[in-house]
Formats: sequence, structure tokens, C-alpha cells
Amino acid sequence: MFLKTKSLEEAKEIALKRIKPTSEVEAIPTERGLGRIVAADLRSRMDLPGFTRATMDGYAVRAGDTFGSSEGEPRVVRVLATVEAGQDASLLLPLKPGEAAGISTGAMMPPGADAVAILEESEAIGEGRMAIFAPVAPGENVEAFDADLKKGERILARGRSIRPQDIGALLGAGITEISVFAKVSVGLIPTGDELVPPAKVPAPGEIRNINSATLAAQIAGLNMQAALYEIVPDEYPRLLEAVEQAIAENDLVLISGGSSVGTRDITLAVVEELGEVLIHGIRIAPGKPTIFSQAKKPLIGLPGNPVSSMIVFDRFVSPLLRKLSGARDWSRPKPQVRARLARNLPSTKGRQEFVRVTMVERGGEIYARPIRARSSQIASLAKADGLITVPAESEGLPRDTEVIVELW
Amino acid sequence: MFLKTKSLEEAKEIALKRIKPTSEVEAIPTERGLGRIVAADLRSRMDLPGFTRATMDGYAVRAGDTFGSSEGEPRVVRVLATVEAGQDASLLLPLKPGEAAGISTGAMMPPGADAVAILEESEAIGEGRMAIFAPVAPGENVEAFDADLKKGERILARGRSIRPQDIGALLGAGITEISVFAKVSVGLIPTGDELVPPAKVPAPGEIRNINSATLAAQIAGLNMQAALYEIVPDEYPRLLEAVEQAIAENDLVLISGGSSVGTRDITLAVVEELGEVLIHGIRIAPGKPTIFSQAKKPLIGLPGNPVSSMIVFDRFVSPLLRKLSGARDWSRPKPQVRARLARNLPSTKGRQEFVRVTMVERGGEIYARPIRARSSQIASLAKADGLITVPAESEGLPRDTEVIVELW
Repeated sequence: MFLKTKSLEEAKEIALKRIKPTSEVEAIPTERGLGRIVAADLRSRMDLPGFTRATMDGYAVRAGDTFGSSEGEPRVVRVLATVEAGQDASLLLPLKPGEAAGISTGAMMPPGADAVAILEESEAIGEGRMAIFAPVAPGENVEAFDADLKKGERILARGRSIRPQDIGALLGAGITEISVFAKVSVGLIPTGDELVPPAKVPAPGEIRNINSATLAAQIAGLNMQAALYEIVPDEYPRLLEAVEQAIAENDLVLISGGSSVGTRDITLAVVEELGEVLIHGIRIAPGKPTIFSQAKKPLIGLPGNPVSSMIVFDRFVSPLLRKLSGARDWSRPKPQVRARLARNLPSTKGRQEFVRVTMVERGGEIYARPIRARSSQIASLAKADGLITVPAESEGLPRDTEVIVELW
Repeated sequence: MFLKTKSLEEAKEIALKRIKPTSEVEAIPTERGLGRIVAADLRSRMDLPGFTRATMDGYAVRAGDTFGSSEGEPRVVRVLATVEAGQDASLLLPLKPGEAAGISTGAMMPPGADAVAILEESEAIGEGRMAIFAPVAPGENVEAFDADLKKGERILARGRSIRPQDIGALLGAGITEISVFAKVSVGLIPTGDELVPPAKVPAPGEIRNINSATLAAQIAGLNMQAALYEIVPDEYPRLLEAVEQAIAENDLVLISGGSSVGTRDITLAVVEELGEVLIHGIRIAPGKPTIFSQAKKPLIGLPGNPVSSMIVFDRFVSPLLRKLSGARDWSRPKPQVRARLARNLPSTKGRQEFVRVTMVERGGEIYARPIRARSSQIASLAKADGLITVPAESEGLPRDTEVIVELW
């Protein structure tokens, strides 16, 4: 079968169309919701605040009693009580003209009061009387009942990722349990005769499998679950069996390919056996030998070079996983830093390139220095501060070009 | 005691000076290292690659044998063997002039070979003979022994936060266990007579304590541990006792203040009793009533309003925690989006303001719409997409100003 290579944008569009968001939901305590995806609109169970409250320390008054007051001609009110935060002031007798109550920020306004004269604009003049030096308008320094949130009002929509502040908002509205989508589970199958587990000392010719652990950490960073399978040698029946099992047990499966042509052939044969290959080759560097297939679950063949594997996961797989997770916001911009290129950067026209860079400061300016290393080289992974993207139509960028470095 | 309020920069400088990075370390499997802080330089245990290997599929040759070859005048070599990835080729007899071996990407180069003639530039002509149509230089399509990483070379420096790719690099170099700093533990004490736990229905005048859960999620986001203490009423001896216990049990303690003047007074008294108050008031809005004190451990009084609490944690507390954690990179830029202000935004000169905004697209342009809500209002927390910062010297920003929205 012959498939034209796709641009990254085309590839994402084709694959995203095939991804169906999960429908599996679970109930969890709101406190544990960080990073989870809301499965059904979450609405307030109450009006907030549940009572009209003071937003400043001072005196709860009838605003009319303060009209016309000034530094030279204060109005005098009689203080009947003091309401502290947490106290139920609703049982007090309504304030009559000329009456007031001391009040703390956050405390419930007593009946009859409609404004707070602040502490700094008042002065005790003995016998429970206060001089008020500035007029306050009705509602001033007061937060009305339900001004924040009305019962039934939506706080978070289905598909929203939950942030720390969302947890606070939900709890404040009395929502202590929430329905979220089950965490996406990603099956990871490393394949290649040359691979050994990281804890094993490689024999001559062998290398350690590092892609499983790197991908697992990338998956964990998306708040999803990675299921790590054992290394499968380059044998068609064994890879087929492993992939079928992983498809049965997960929402999406990644085959982390060995880099040899033998591995690639076997991976392609398995992927073709199990589903429809929609993408075979993406015009990016590194990362070209990527396969996407629609089997019973989405099935992706990743390149075996560690740098390629990471970048394809980040640019291609992670938006698919976000959609699969039920999230509406499929991607979020990465932290970025503007910098100048420290040297000329040649590039091949016709493919989008992701270039590892280190950042250095020189004369108050930030420079991005491209790393000269093959995508098989792992030292470059730890050295790189970020990536810059060279567009497909570019033949390279001259030194001193302003670039955007995405931290990774 | 009277302390002048500080700018945020001054406050951070004063507090950072007092923070001593933790010295507590622990050994963990490298796979579990995501987000942890390296406690001692990590160096490669081996040369990588451990053998000279092919970077393309093709034929391992003596480069000299291909010199002068062309489409019209190929050079012919005899193929003695094929080396697959994972095989030990070091036992093969060294290639003699005119000899070659088939080789896969990633496979070990056989003795005597110094370059790879790629598959696409060769053709089988029968009886184990290959025609090579293009010359290759010595070292071409070959990655030399130790070109990636030398034994003893530093991979990660002390103080580095571990990213997914760092895990890969460490494992690739044979480092399966690492020494990291113990996770910072942050004690959180909510205080205020008006507070009830989120699961309780507030009586009239009471509100739910949402700051503990929000701060705990912010702390979890920094990969640190939060120890949540019970709500302490506004009583000096009880708050003193709770804070002493939290100081004994954690690396840093946050007192999440009720917003009433009574709570503030008691918090200040406790903080003064236990240490030296270095900061009392930061010129930011929201977030002014922040206290930093050097007790046996750093002790911070946070404002009680949920929005203020979050922002002070994010802008002031989190860099302190990063330093405490042993991290060298004390902060990391947040994801940012450029936008235009959707309306005029007045601001008070003399204090830095953090304004919650929602983002909307209009005619292909992104607009940031400031949210009009008090810092006590929790609905605004869930609504806001990000924050914009209005500098202290500004009296406001006119509509259409280009602003940077930090996503939160």
C-alpha cells in the first residue's frame, strides 16, 4: 500500500477525525479533581454568598443616615451590637434610623443595614456613639446575597480540565463530589531485537529501552495512565499478539518501534493486519516514520529514535489523547521564551523541523543555540532547554533571527 | 511594630534571602523521577553508544572501496554477512578490501567497516554481490563509539528539575536509581470563625473553607506535599499551638487567614510571637495583607479572600518553595497568550495589579476581557482564563492595548 506522507497539520486533522472521546465516567471527591476532565456540566447547589455581607471592616448603617456627612459635619449613629464573621446576624432587630452595628469584613449584614461606613472614616465619641465622616451609598462596601453565584448557575462546563481554582469554586458552591471522565489508558509496546530493559547491562550490539519510560512520563504529564508492556522481539506473531492484547486493555496503543528496517516492516504488517492505515509518514524532522491506524482502538507506530519519539508524542499524539480524554481544550500553549538564533540554522525545504536548542544569556539578550546531534543521541535530550520550529517552506534561518523557544 | 509595605520584587528578595534549600535527600528509581529535584550531579556510567553503529539501512563498507563510484560506473562489493540491530558484530572477521556486510539502522558496525552505503544507492547483482552507485566518506552514516555520551560525563546537574526526556537520558546511561531532594512539605492552617469544612452546609453567616483545597492543589502542581490542618477558630492560644505543631512537622507553614480584622490581628500576634516579621503588606492587588516571618521555619500569612490567596501563592510563595526544594531554576515562565484589552482598565498607581480576564476571539483577534468581580468572589476563579499584570506605575490601560495573558 502506498500512502503519501502528510504534513503535521494534515496528519492531526485525519487522526483527530477518527478519535472518539471516551464516555466512561467516574465519581470522585472534588479535592482530588486536579487535572481531571469534567464529564457533565457542574452547577452551583446554592446562592453565593448565602447572605449579604460586609466587604470592609466598619459600621453597618442605613446609608441614608450618612448622607451629607463630612469631615467638619459628621453624622452620629448609635452602635447597638457588633457582628463578627461567622455570626448569624439575621436574628438581630432591624436597625432603626440612627442605629448602626459594628461589623467585620465577611460578616453578615444585620437587618435594616444597607451599607458599611468604613472604620477609617468614623470615630467613637463615647456612650456607644460613632461619628461618621463620609457618606456611603446604599450597597457600598456590601456584597449582596447571590452576587457571586446563583443556585443552578454553571461553574464548569463538560470537557473542562480542572485547575486548582476550579476546585475552590466547586467546593465553595457545595459541590464535594464530581463526575469526571475515566483517565485515558495508553498501552506502550516497545519493539526491537536490540532493546533490553534499562536495568540490564546491554550486551555488545544491544541498547537500553528508554522510550517506554520517557513516554510514560509524558503520559503522566497529561494526567493519563500508561500501561507498559514488555519488549517484543522483531517477530510478527509475537508483536501481533502483544498489540491485540494492548488494544483490548487500553484506549489507545503506541508501538515504540525499533529503528531498523526489519522492525519497521513488522510493525507496519501488524498495523495493517489490525486496522486501516491512514497515515504513514509525516513531513517533520525528526519524526517522519510515524504510522497512524484505526484499529478497534487508535494504533500509532512511533519512531524508535528517542528524540523523534518524544517530539512525535508531543506534537502529534498528545492532541489525540486530549480529545480521547473528553477534554474540549485539546491543547494548551507551552511556556515560551523569545530568543535570537546564536548561529545560522540550515533546514530542508518541504518538512517542518523541530530543533533542540540550549539557551544562553549574552549581553542581556537571550540566545538560542541549536544542538548539533542526531535524533538518536540521548545526551541532547537532557541538554536541550527547548525546541524551535522551522517551517516547512523555510530553507533555514540566519543567525540573529528572532525565534520562539518552546520550553520542553 | 511598623513595617513599610513592600513591592513584590522587594518582598521576594527579602524572603528568598532567608530561605535555605532543603538538604534532605532520598534515593528513588529513575522512572519515578518526574518533577523531582536532582540532589547530586548525575554522570554517565558508560560510553554511549557503547559500540560504533549504523545510522541508516544499507551496507557496511570500507569507504575507500566506494571512491569514484557513480550511477554509470558502480563499484562492486561482496556481501559476506548481514548484521541486524541487537547482534554482536565484533566477532566477525574484519572486512577485507572489496568486502561488505548488510546492516540495519542501529546495528553494530562490523570490524574493518568505516561507512554505510545506503540501501537506495545500491543494487544486488547476483551471487552475493552488490553494485554501489555513490561514494561514501569514512564515518558517513555511522555513529562512533561514545559520540553521544562519555563515561563520567555529566547528564544532569544538582538542582535540576527532572523532565520526561531526562528520565530517558539517565536510563540510557545506565542510571536506574537517583538521589533527589525530599519533597518539600507545606503545612496549611486555615483560620477564621466563619469557616466551615467544605462538606458541611454553612449556617447563616458561615462560609466554606475553600482555600485549603485550592492551595493544596497549587502545591501538588509544584510536585510538593501539602499537610492540611483543621480550621482554627480566632483564638490566640489555639492558633499559636496549631502553628507550632505545623512548624515542627513541615518545611514551611501557610496560615490562610480569615478576612476579618480579628483574624488578622490574631494571626499577626502569633507570627510575631514565633519569629521575626520581615514583611507585612505587599503592594499588590489583590493580595496586600500578606505576612512573611522567619520563625524556626518560614511562616507566611496569606490573605483570606480566595482570589488573593491564589495569586499570592503563585507570585510570592511558589518561588520561595522552589528555592526551598533545592531547585536551581526558581521559576519557569507560564504559558502566555498575546491579546488586546477588550475595555479600558483603570488601575491604582502605586501597586501592581493582577487582573483576571477571560479570552474571546473576535474577527480573528484575541481579546482579553477583564472580569469585574471582588477578590472574594469564587465564580470569577472558574471563569478566568488568565491574569494580566498592570505595573505599579500605571494608572490603567486603555482599551485595545496589547497585553500578555498568563494562563492560570
